[in-house]
Amino acid sequence: MLLFYQSNIEKTPILSEEDSRHCVKVLRKNIKDKIHVVDGLGGLFECEITKAHEKKCEVRILSTKREFEKRTHYLHIAIAPTKNADRIEYFVEKCVEIGVDEITLIQTKHSERKNQKTERLEKIAISAMKQSLKAYLPKVNELMDFDKFIKTANFEAKFVAHLSEDAKPLKDVVTIKNEILLMIGPEGDFAQDEILLAQKYDFQLVTLGNSRLRTETAGVVACAIVNAFN
Amino acid sequence: MLLFYQSNIEKTPILSEEDSRHCVKVLRKNIKDKIHVVDGLGGLFECEITKAHEKKCEVRILSTKREFEKRTHYLHIAIAPTKNADRIEYFVEKCVEIGVDEITLIQTKHSERKNQKTERLEKIAISAMKQSLKAYLPKVNELMDFDKFIKTANFEAKFVAHLSEDAKPLKDVVTIKNEILLMIGPEGDFAQDEILLAQKYDFQLVTLGNSRLRTETAGVVACAIVNAFN
Repeated sequence: MLLFYQSNIEKTPILSEEDSRHCVKVLRKNIKDKIHVVDGLGGLFECEITKAHEKKCEVRILSTKREFEKRTHYLHIAIAPTKNADRIEYFVEKCVEIGVDEITLIQTKHSERKNQKTERLEKIAISAMKQSLKAYLPKVNELMDFDKFIKTANFEAKFVAHLSEDAKPLKDVVTIKNEILLMIGPEGDFAQDEILLAQKYDFQLVTLGNSRLRTETAGVVACAIVNAFN
Repeated sequence: MLLFYQSNIEKTPILSEEDSRHCVKVLRKNIKDKIHVVDGLGGLFECEITKAHEKKCEVRILSTKREFEKRTHYLHIAIAPTKNADRIEYFVEKCVEIGVDEITLIQTKHSERKNQKTERLEKIAISAMKQSLKAYLPKVNELMDFDKFIKTANFEAKFVAHLSEDAKPLKDVVTIKNEILLMIGPEGDFAQDEILLAQKYDFQLVTLGNSRLRTETAGVVACAIVNAFN
């Protein structure tokens, strides 16, 4: 199965310019051919092409599945942007494949990068969603100040990855939670006062194992553990 | 801490040309400066520079730690090379960071790539070992035929990642094993007769969750799950 994405497929049954080109020009689909479209909100639609236009491919919905492969938990990962943009892009791709619902970029004291456009990350998320046959598109939030994020984050279970003696293995504390928020620091780790503030706001310290992981690797490992144990 | 690599440091206490340049030219280290060197076999050596040569930096060993952060298990991942070389390179980097002991590239029926040089993968493994402060360098084996690999692989616990009803979650079967061999198939998955052959040779079918993962993502997720337990 190959998926196309149109967030508003029920009201506007026309593929985007990019998807139209891929569908009609690259894959040479034609009128009456069947394709699958997701809306990023859990909807999976079997469609028939009604107008095989290279820029505005029109379709008709034949059947609809709601909440397609809905997960039992909601996972939000907040992560410091990496110095090298490729690395955070890779993180987004892998987490979308494995399973994540929301990603927020956070500005911490030791962050090596002070800005990060989300537009490209959203494109990567869409592509990974299609590739891994998912119908839910994770939300990618703009870079946010650490303090502000900590104070407004309202989740059932809140974790911050940090190497310390108080930290418990993520796999041991993450079971049977509906809403999980996980924070991953920059290469230089969180500052000590950031950790204290996080603890004040009920974040629990967790470790991802004994290895020293790069930021983006820590994000992917955390995502894999949550999805394996929940 | 910053690590340099010299597999034969005890007999030849001279850094490689690349490491010498990095140490002397980039980091401007000089005589009597202290550096750390690993031998890839578990040895971590504190050294003092005795000759700050840009191509042949000479050192003297001050102290030695054997079996530095030795893991309790041995993990061998056999994986089909990806069409896009970047993706298998990324897999090697991430697994070395997370923790792996041996990687074998396997030639399967549905493999999209029929050759893969290991030289570049070895370089990536060395770099990831240094970056993640490890003293063991994983072995990267040349591309090997699937059938031959299956028949000669001798491990306490052998798993093959495959989506089927008989497959058990990797996390449930991987606990308390000393030697783990895990096979990850190509994008088009293993052929049915390959799965049957693997089962004949005592490979157990495992799943890595419900998501459809790319080959390299499956490799990283499997590595993360094994290391979360062991």
